Amino acid sequence: MCIFVLKNEKPHIAILKSELMKIAIAQLNYHIGNFEGNLSKMLASVKKAEEKGADIVVFGELSTCGYPPRDFLEFDDFITKSEACVEKLAKASHNIAIVVGSPTRNPVIEGKDLFNSAIFLYGGKVLHTQHKALLPTYDIFDEYRYFEPATEFKPVEFKGKKIALTVCEDIWNVGNENPMYVTCPLDEMQPMNPDFVINLSASPFNYNSGSTRIGVLKANVERYGLPMFYANQSGAQTEVIFEGGSLVVSPDGNVFDELPYFKEELRVYDLDEVMKGGVNREQPKEKMSLIHDAIVMGIKDYFGKLGFKKAVLGLSGGIDSAVTAALAARALGPENVLAVLMPSQFSSDHSVNDARGLAENFGMPYKIIPIKGAYDAFMGELETHFEGRPFNVTEENIQARSRGVYLMALSNKFGNILLNTSNKSEMAVGYGTLYGDMCGGLSVIGDVYKSEVFELARFINKDGELIPENTITKPPSAELRPDQKDSDSLPDYDILDEVLYQYIENRKGPKEIIAMGFDEKLVARVLRLVNINEFKRYQTAPVIRVSSKAFGVGRRMPIVGKYLS
Amino acid sequence: MCIFVLKNEKPHIAILKSELMKIAIAQLNYHIGNFEGNLSKMLASVKKAEEKGADIVVFGELSTCGYPPRDFLEFDDFITKSEACVEKLAKASHNIAIVVGSPTRNPVIEGKDLFNSAIFLYGGKVLHTQHKALLPTYDIFDEYRYFEPATEFKPVEFKGKKIALTVCEDIWNVGNENPMYVTCPLDEMQPMNPDFVINLSASPFNYNSGSTRIGVLKANVERYGLPMFYANQSGAQTEVIFEGGSLVVSPDGNVFDELPYFKEELRVYDLDEVMKGGVNREQPKEKMSLIHDAIVMGIKDYFGKLGFKKAVLGLSGGIDSAVTAALAARALGPENVLAVLMPSQFSSDHSVNDARGLAENFGMPYKIIPIKGAYDAFMGELETHFEGRPFNVTEENIQARSRGVYLMALSNKFGNILLNTSNKSEMAVGYGTLYGDMCGGLSVIGDVYKSEVFELARFINKDGELIPENTITKPPSAELRPDQKDSDSLPDYDILDEVLYQYIENRKGPKEIIAMGFDEKLVARVLRLVNINEFKRYQTAPVIRVSSKAFGVGRRMPIVGKYLS
Repeated sequence: MCIFVLKNEKPHIAILKSELMKIAIAQLNYHIGNFEGNLSKMLASVKKAEEKGADIVVFGELSTCGYPPRDFLEFDDFITKSEACVEKLAKASHNIAIVVGSPTRNPVIEGKDLFNSAIFLYGGKVLHTQHKALLPTYDIFDEYRYFEPATEFKPVEFKGKKIALTVCEDIWNVGNENPMYVTCPLDEMQPMNPDFVINLSASPFNYNSGSTRIGVLKANVERYGLPMFYANQSGAQTEVIFEGGSLVVSPDGNVFDELPYFKEELRVYDLDEVMKGGVNREQPKEKMSLIHDAIVMGIKDYFGKLGFKKAVLGLSGGIDSAVTAALAARALGPENVLAVLMPSQFSSDHSVNDARGLAENFGMPYKIIPIKGAYDAFMGELETHFEGRPFNVTEENIQARSRGVYLMALSNKFGNILLNTSNKSEMAVGYGTLYGDMCGGLSVIGDVYKSEVFELARFINKDGELIPENTITKPPSAELRPDQKDSDSLPDYDILDEVLYQYIENRKGPKEIIAMGFDEKLVARVLRLVNINEFKRYQTAPVIRVSSKAFGVGRRMPIVGKYLS
Repeated sequence: MCIFVLKNEKPHIAILKSELMKIAIAQLNYHIGNFEGNLSKMLASVKKAEEKGADIVVFGELSTCGYPPRDFLEFDDFITKSEACVEKLAKASHNIAIVVGSPTRNPVIEGKDLFNSAIFLYGGKVLHTQHKALLPTYDIFDEYRYFEPATEFKPVEFKGKKIALTVCEDIWNVGNENPMYVTCPLDEMQPMNPDFVINLSASPFNYNSGSTRIGVLKANVERYGLPMFYANQSGAQTEVIFEGGSLVVSPDGNVFDELPYFKEELRVYDLDEVMKGGVNREQPKEKMSLIHDAIVMGIKDYFGKLGFKKAVLGLSGGIDSAVTAALAARALGPENVLAVLMPSQFSSDHSVNDARGLAENFGMPYKIIPIKGAYDAFMGELETHFEGRPFNVTEENIQARSRGVYLMALSNKFGNILLNTSNKSEMAVGYGTLYGDMCGGLSVIGDVYKSEVFELARFINKDGELIPENTITKPPSAELRPDQKDSDSLPDYDILDEVLYQYIENRKGPKEIIAMGFDEKLVARVLRLVNINEFKRYQTAPVIRVSSKAFGVGRRMPIVGKYLS
């Protein structure tokens, strides 16, 4: 709109107007249902933004109640509490406009009961409410379960500017090119000549989301020629990570600013400066670095938001538990991570040494608890009941489950949360023991394929050996029977992970995957393993999501299905 | 339409026409993703219907692929296989029309990729396709995740009749009075004067669904004056039960026929007879009988569809495991249910006797495995690590988890599925041990409140004492410490269950529940317990759903939420 202003017959006044406009983006870490906490964070940001001379401060989507609130939205009391938050924020809007995200009630009887709204507060009251039109209902999203889509679109006028308010997905159908949607909110508002766009988001992280998001914002700027102020949130809500990376994009398509990843931040922008453009402040986006930081935040927030400080986990000497422990140590402090080494008769010598080495490198407390006594006690009772059947996966599972009992006992006695150490590859094919090594309150690397776990270990070691080199280089083994190797039961991880990626992330069927050059029998075997193990994944911990398709709430599969199985 | 025909100038011809129309309802038990199985079932029903002289045979919603297929719908290969099923059915439609439910592709780029369709096959080809308009996206339903709603509505013409095809929810917005929806398919079709309505359903069971469904059908008949042929499915898909109870309703509002509950059935109706009405063949709907039969089907289908025959479960002498065992014995045959009695030092004398009595009454095999050895082994290793902290819930959990290890060992060794015995009240407040008594592949009574478990026990005993009387009358206890009673930790079940019902089924908030006369502190405590135990329920088995709101896929709550907690 800068161009239009310069062509205007009264450039002087126009420039004066824009000089007055300062927009603050508050990238905050909300907590679902913690109205008091969210409100006090927002009020502190309002104050800070005011002190910095901002005219407007923008918060994230559903910032009153936190995102995703899920079925809490079905409780009238929960909505009332969100409304009370908005009222209190309105009282703080006498000298600064506040744009807050909140659920609002649909006064029309027909349709869903709620809207997902951006509310513009100023002078102590609601100046404008714009509902969200595009309601993501895929992967982890269930918005159409709760919300009615907007059908009316109107910019809000404030201090001589027209501002197009949008909520998250609303800007993801640029020029109606997103096949999922049939409306395009900014197309609707364009004829009313808005001066700039504000977007309130709860846009979740995956290792590609930063680039994708910038692409979407640039496409909007290209289409509408308007500067965009995009406020994402930062923080983890159980499995869903919001990395922040809020954006300001100039009309020339340059990223005027990209807010930091994985932390809270408040920054104020002069609209005039943004209009000028010519500055590109994109951050680096390195996959392993992003995954590392996302998981660290995921652990930290899971514990912090549940009111816990300490973790416990089993350390086998293998790479999965080593990486999990390293990430936990960074999230919680090594002194708060109790490592438990539980050798059995099948454990190799290096297992205990490697595990102890890791604990010592990080400075974590550790305990050694041999499982032989418990295992023998179980087997002693079971021998007659097993009717002479040979050693098989049952005995392996008894070892894994005995470890689970020890870990949970320490978790219960000391009020720690047990961390699950399964990786995505083994979760996919069911290579793990339910109620054994699949125990834990939070799956730390359950969205990281085994081949990526190796990369992550190298990343953690980039400034020196923290994870023992032997842990990274030795052949993976569950050590539940003599000389066992993962490769006895599974294809090589490099191949396995590629097949899994095509099936899970890309949702390719067997024919398509075989056409890519993979062996037909191997593909059939892997896909079958994935499908017959839904029952195991159904009962495992929430998985910190770092890819575009994680196990858990974003991937909903029938258990009794008979498909490729 | 009967009335219109009689008013018609050519009543003779009109009656002749209707004399020729016979409609078969095939109420079948489909299996998600089992295309071959579903197809062969449908082809057998086509043959049977043909033999009985039917002009049309009607199957259920998404009968090619089974309901709910969930994210399998995102696989192109899965849709292709559904289409192949429809093609094969078309080839069987030379002498009889077939109405089948199947996902179909949306040729328009904008909007969701699929429709949920009723396909009318005749003469070897598709005569008409009517897409579903009302897409349930609440509770266990996720239809808007996958499907685009229909915007065009047209009856199909067949042998001189106009037939309005509808899919399940399409008839649940009678006269636009359902607040969730803004369209009403039969209102759209009414101006085209259909002669009757066919509905293909996958309408899930709860202990009120039978009456609700009849109410909805009668409301439709009252509004449109048309006879309705409503084909539901019968069978369980993991946690979701379809009870059947397909319906034929005459224009006079009488239930001309209601098909049996919990079994497959094919019946043929003469349209003329249905038009006449005056007959009411509703079935009795007794809550405990329905819950009993629904759970029996739930167990049977979970095992059958996964290819298992045998179950194992822990029998404590208490009422929950007794009722679970009884239901399993009825579903699988008592010889296929292995009961395991695992006494500890805290078990009372009557526990083993009551458990043994139950096993003997039903004729189930049972084993006795004391847990002392395993418990002592764990405690021996843990003693020093516990640093002198007193006996608490940790030691209780070690007992429960030792039992879990034994049960899972027997499950693994003999290829049985472990049944979970938790009731809805204890699942709600977290009164159970994760990886201990919360183990199991299927939660049998997890949607039955404790007070209802007592009713169910009485129902099971209605023709004689199968569950020992002492099991029903003694005070509930977990027997994990000396003289423990449930009432030490929990409010009386009668009160607890009422509060839970208001919170879970009715989604009432604290203020509303207190206003009903419940103690303020008790309400706060119960609601807090429910909310802080989401992490436990997240990791438990699928729960056979018998109420309008079960734990699991139909109730989606954040774990890190801080609401009433």
